[in-house]
Amino acid sequence: MPASEIACWFDFASTYSYVSVLRLARQRDVIVQWKPFLLGPIFKEQGWDNSPFVLQKDKGDYMWMDMARECAKYGLPWRQPSEFPRRSLLAARVALLGEHQPWMAEFCARTMLANFEHDEDIGSSDCIAAILTSIGLDAATLLAAAQSDDNKARLRARSEEAKSRHLFGAPTFFVDNEMYWGNDRLSDALAKRR
Amino acid sequence: MPASEIACWFDFASTYSYVSVLRLARQRDVIVQWKPFLLGPIFKEQGWDNSPFVLQKDKGDYMWMDMARECAKYGLPWRQPSEFPRRSLLAARVALLGEHQPWMAEFCARTMLANFEHDEDIGSSDCIAAILTSIGLDAATLLAAAQSDDNKARLRARSEEAKSRHLFGAPTFFVDNEMYWGNDRLSDALAKRR
Repeated sequence: MPASEIACWFDFASTYSYVSVLRLARQRDVIVQWKPFLLGPIFKEQGWDNSPFVLQKDKGDYMWMDMARECAKYGLPWRQPSEFPRRSLLAARVALLGEHQPWMAEFCARTMLANFEHDEDIGSSDCIAAILTSIGLDAATLLAAAQSDDNKARLRARSEEAKSRHLFGAPTFFVDNEMYWGNDRLSDALAKRR
Repeated sequence: MPASEIACWFDFASTYSYVSVLRLARQRDVIVQWKPFLLGPIFKEQGWDNSPFVLQKDKGDYMWMDMARECAKYGLPWRQPSEFPRRSLLAARVALLGEHQPWMAEFCARTMLANFEHDEDIGSSDCIAAILTSIGLDAATLLAAAQSDDNKARLRARSEEAKSRHLFGAPTFFVDNEMYWGNDRLSDALAKRR
């Protein structure tokens, strides 16, 4: 990748990914390589059947408090979702189709806001269809393409790439092959671009 | 605690605690409530018999890279210790004696540097004795007091307090009862003081 770009690996279910995706979607001068992926298979490799924020109660309780604080810091809307983590499989499949499309940043931002501002079930095709329609896209065609065997295989390949790149959480950024983990490192990653 | 103070909970074996302790020890205008404690019992509650940085290899590998980067960012010396995590029990017991003493910040800083700059075994009484002597203290008397039954009981009570305050990692800061986890939140915690 060109050293002027930043790759952003994120999961639509991930709280700190929400903060980073919104920050990047709003910075129109930054060229982002969007890398939607699923944390589930990464966590499974660790022997975890859920998010560490669910499995470790104290860490989870702190995260909810910290998210409210962080969103205030970055000027982002915030409502703790009534369900966590939400199923992000469908959103990830649709996002795979949009990676190199002009609508990608808007789709990612609106899907994140559906989850973390509007408390909507982003796992449902109705919700994702409404988001696609709201940005002027053909929802039915995109949802069908998202669920095609080819596209499902692409998401599985993305999971394999995440493992081979040693990702262990989200968001994770790469600039010039250097890894930065967490929204707390986004500014450092952006500063590293040439 | 007065809202102008910051409580710093840290473990001498913890890499990110090293960064925070050094940053705080150098800020002479900040009143710090030093809270040495042991992460071991906290991790055991999670069913872990070692640091997550050891148990999760990808996360550990990233941490060592990140520590080098973070220490450069904060202008701190850094050498990856040949043993990790080091036994921090003795250093914690000595630090408990120093909590309200004028030598506390200096002892903490030098012990952290012994571990993370000079790659010394801070688990050994020789190492801790040398540090105490280097700052003009009576090492033999302090080491004996550190290993007294009373002081051992105080460290166990500190572990119970850590659990009751829902700590799950280190460093952890409190300002006016608000919790901040990680060196990445130290600036926010300091800014919160009134």
